[in-house]
Amino acid sequence: MEKLKPYYHTVQYYETDAMAVVHHSNYIRWFEEARLDYLEQSGYPYGGIEQRGLMIPVLSASCEYRQAVRFGETVRIETEIAEFKGLKFRIVYEVYDKERKVLHARGNTEHCFLNQDFRPVSIKKMAPDLYEFFTSKG
Amino acid sequence: MEKLKPYYHTVQYYETDAMAVVHHSNYIRWFEEARLDYLEQSGYPYGGIEQRGLMIPVLSASCEYRQAVRFGETVRIETEIAEFKGLKFRIVYEVYDKERKVLHARGNTEHCFLNQDFRPVSIKKMAPDLYEFFTSKG
Amino acid sequence: MEKLKPYYHTVQYYETDAMAVVHHSNYIRWFEEARLDYLEQSGYPYGGIEQRGLMIPVLSASCEYRQAVRFGETVRIETEIAEFKGLKFRIVYEVYDKERKVLHARGNTEHCFLNQDFRPVSIKKMAPDLYEFFTSKG
Amino acid sequence: MEKLKPYYHTVQYYETDAMAVVHHSNYIRWFEEARLDYLEQSGYPYGGIEQRGLMIPVLSASCEYRQAVRFGETVRIETEIAEFKGLKFRIVYEVYDKERKVLHARGNTEHCFLNQDFRPVSIKKMAPDLYEFFTSKG
Repeated sequence: MEKLKPYYHTVQYYETDAMAVVHHSNYIRWFEEARLDYLEQSGYPYGGIEQRGLMIPVLSASCEYRQAVRFGETVRIETEIAEFKGLKFRIVYEVYDKERKVLHARGNTEHCFLNQDFRPVSIKKMAPDLYEFFTSKG
Repeated sequence: MEKLKPYYHTVQYYETDAMAVVHHSNYIRWFEEARLDYLEQSGYPYGGIEQRGLMIPVLSASCEYRQAVRFGETVRIETEIAEFKGLKFRIVYEVYDKERKVLHARGNTEHCFLNQDFRPVSIKKMAPDLYEFFTSKG
Repeated sequence: MEKLKPYYHTVQYYETDAMAVVHHSNYIRWFEEARLDYLEQSGYPYGGIEQRGLMIPVLSASCEYRQAVRFGETVRIETEIAEFKGLKFRIVYEVYDKERKVLHARGNTEHCFLNQDFRPVSIKKMAPDLYEFFTSKG
Repeated sequence: MEKLKPYYHTVQYYETDAMAVVHHSNYIRWFEEARLDYLEQSGYPYGGIEQRGLMIPVLSASCEYRQAVRFGETVRIETEIAEFKGLKFRIVYEVYDKERKVLHARGNTEHCFLNQDFRPVSIKKMAPDLYEFFTSKG
């Protein structure tokens, strides 16, 4: 399989705060953007996952901020599935500047799969292709 | 009926932008806060309206910005149903400082009622008490 | 001068609300994205405008919502300077689906120019090129 | 010193997402609300800290989500300084329902103090009262 492209996000003015840098809560939103782009690039757009009756809630999220990002800049986010244990998986993110010279932040999120009754499910039977994909990565 | 209390909102740091004032998009969110508080104070909490199978989408929103609001300030929002014509209604908002000496902004939103199939409905039959309430105001 | 490209925005999951559509406040943010992209394409990136000691606050904003936008969709925003009267200008926006078959929303924002003391200024002397540009459009 | 009051936040409609629960990024914003309320109750409102030439950036943030919060609910956030080592400090948060029967989430944030040149500073000399306060807690 070909390598996935990193995700680029152009910083919006409404993402800045009174310190004239991006408000820290927005990195958690960027992780979501990068994660859904990653799944789409991998052939599993989130809309399709939902249509199969699955949801992927966030169990935890964390971010370590190293260097502030400012309005007008574009960040490059590299995303990877770091761990998959059948029920849960963990994704790691690195937020670089456009040229990948500065690491602005890094973080990770943990997830599980829920069915339409909001109950955790194993995707091994419900979505074997997805199971295969996560197993090959995690 | 007793007069409704104005709605107070304390400005959060994440609501500011790089000009060190509240980002203008947040006023539209404050209008929503004030509107739902108004309905709740009037005896029609939005959760209850939804349970009766009704939704109140926003048809239009506008805001005129007069004086910036900053972090640490608390705004006082006065809300009124300005017009109700059976199907649609309009709400007007005035955003003051806490002591009501400065008018920071004013705006309005227009709404209709939708049923669960996302179709516009008259509430005259579906929710006569709500109809009565809007008629008495608009 | 060549025609400007429309602005495309991919809807993010965090922009949706419990009605499973994009929350109406986000359109005001999209207008900002489209406006700054428009200025950048025209040769006036906002960062450069700020460096010249000018700010462009929002005096008013309004949006008329016609058809909801959902997660997974991409919108195409067409932006135009509709009016420029020396001190103030008005921009209009039309939000279409990607293929420009459905008009989801339209709106406008009004602006003036402020100097670093937060006072309204005429850009005729301070930024004659910008004045020329706005005059040619408005 | 009297015990601090927990911080209450009423969930807003614009904080929900298409899963009809509060979007996970908002908890990071609630932590900020609770943190600034905590500092204010302790006699150190953030505006005053900034006036002394100090900023308190976020070095890291994390949240563990246990049970979703929905529109119409009010959360009770308990905040505590967990650690202070002269330069850095860590705050922990617990997000409960209003009656404190359900733990919805918990998390923590790490911070340092910056001067106006964006350089880390020891507050021992610059703000001995603040130093005293953090030492008594951490």
